[in-house]
Amino acid sequence: MRLATYRSTVEAAARLGAVVDDRIVDIERLGQSAGAALPSTMLDFIDLGPDAVRHATALLDALGDAQPVGLATPLANVTLLAPIPRPRKNIFGIGLNYIDHVAESAAALDTSPDLPRQPVIFSKPPTSVIGPDAPILHDAAITQQLDWEVELAAVIGTRARRVARERALAHVFGYTVLIDMSARDCRRAGQWIYSKGQDSYAPMGPVIVTADELPDPQTLDLWLTVNGVEKQRSNTSHMLFKVDELIADISQGITLEPGDIIATGTPEGVGAGRTPQEWVWPGDTIIATVEGIGTLRHPVVAA
Amino acid sequence: MRLATYRSTVEAAARLGAVVDDRIVDIERLGQSAGAALPSTMLDFIDLGPDAVRHATALLDALGDAQPVGLATPLANVTLLAPIPRPRKNIFGIGLNYIDHVAESAAALDTSPDLPRQPVIFSKPPTSVIGPDAPILHDAAITQQLDWEVELAAVIGTRARRVARERALAHVFGYTVLIDMSARDCRRAGQWIYSKGQDSYAPMGPVIVTADELPDPQTLDLWLTVNGVEKQRSNTSHMLFKVDELIADISQGITLEPGDIIATGTPEGVGAGRTPQEWVWPGDTIIATVEGIGTLRHPVVAA
Repeated sequence: MRLATYRSTVEAAARLGAVVDDRIVDIERLGQSAGAALPSTMLDFIDLGPDAVRHATALLDALGDAQPVGLATPLANVTLLAPIPRPRKNIFGIGLNYIDHVAESAAALDTSPDLPRQPVIFSKPPTSVIGPDAPILHDAAITQQLDWEVELAAVIGTRARRVARERALAHVFGYTVLIDMSARDCRRAGQWIYSKGQDSYAPMGPVIVTADELPDPQTLDLWLTVNGVEKQRSNTSHMLFKVDELIADISQGITLEPGDIIATGTPEGVGAGRTPQEWVWPGDTIIATVEGIGTLRHPVVAA
Repeated sequence: MRLATYRSTVEAAARLGAVVDDRIVDIERLGQSAGAALPSTMLDFIDLGPDAVRHATALLDALGDAQPVGLATPLANVTLLAPIPRPRKNIFGIGLNYIDHVAESAAALDTSPDLPRQPVIFSKPPTSVIGPDAPILHDAAITQQLDWEVELAAVIGTRARRVARERALAHVFGYTVLIDMSARDCRRAGQWIYSKGQDSYAPMGPVIVTADELPDPQTLDLWLTVNGVEKQRSNTSHMLFKVDELIADISQGITLEPGDIIATGTPEGVGAGRTPQEWVWPGDTIIATVEGIGTLRHPVVAA
């Protein structure tokens, strides 16, 4: 399934839906139509575990092309929010996880040219999340070096504490796209959270593709444009630490929980690594895509 | 008020209480006894805003020495949990915020000897929190350098976005004690979250003292012992960036919300800064105190 959190024009509360072609099917009402209890939020749905995915998928398949009134809405008539508008925990970000990005970062920033021997973990607060099309805030009083990073993000489905790499992917609920916005001049004694954790610095979506539809997350093209010019293009096969290694590593010390998000790092092509360096400014538009998941489109606006 | 989250022997759910001498008064039932609606959790209470503090304080004062059955319980009969057992967001930690700690860190670790010009911000996940007396986990497969850091922590009461320093303390709900456990050998490319964010690395409590009872957070002695030997002793007057500056600074880029926690940094005397260096091991006991708030006592145990 391609799951989204959306808001329609007819009700105030955000809803959980499955995107099918050009419409979105309300998951709670899909359940009701079959006499089954399915929830109205992404986190509640994730909490139900893998059986809920199978159940909802079966109901969706059975629906076929039928479009009962109140169940399906044209996508054009709804607003997509971040799939998890408010994570329960900081997002775990991974730095320096593509070889060529390690090189460009060492040349332009303060990181080592050596490949990291263990995943480089940082965090972004829940308040940094925004949904598709929402503005990325540029505060000129704080940064003159706002940069882009397109990333594949994994969403945890079941509690993971000290899991082995071989079992790690079984803990994934699904995958989404995340732009790890980074104000390079807001690092503090080398710490990244203030550079990467400000409000609006984690555009996410447009959907979570459940893991059953993306059994191998290491084969996906991903790319990013600024004002229509391609800046980043790579493939998740080039990750230094794969999704399963990241989950195994983090979970050795930090319990991962349903709904937790791991942004798996960005490939080369960030603004800091260019000659001359490039940054985004109010009026710019960033578009980021991960193959098989979808595209995020965000204007940069003055805060 | 001195507010705690506690569990009694007679009911499963954690409760919110006010510590008065050697007993704890249940806040929800205190409200009920006066026909008022007060909540049963710390976060719900914080969400009610400053009026709730004034209201509950008045009810508590009116109670005096009366101990109605079901309202007050001897402290000896309850278990205190972390005041906020599950924060809604990462804890914000502040590094290098006492002059002599900047020096010892530069000598022993990888930080600069220069005083930071802006607060050095990092984060600890919600899953790192433990309550009074709970074990600190020592995983010998991950760290051989587990260190202590006693800190004053500020708890945010009302939403803060771009607040001026002069208005910042008005956003504080209260203060608690936090031990910022730090596995020095788990830094990754200079990032601290894996060294400071593992499960059990944020002992917190025993109470939150509401801000009305601690109008000046910059006058408090704080100290820490390991196995009865004093390792740290300082005063919050020595902070480089005071609590109001930290709130003003963070809130310029990151919205602070009710229940958010800022651990304000540790003074000199950490294990990494000693000659020879010292670390804690299973069997050790860490006791940390901030004047006017209380004392945390934690055994270190093998994970």
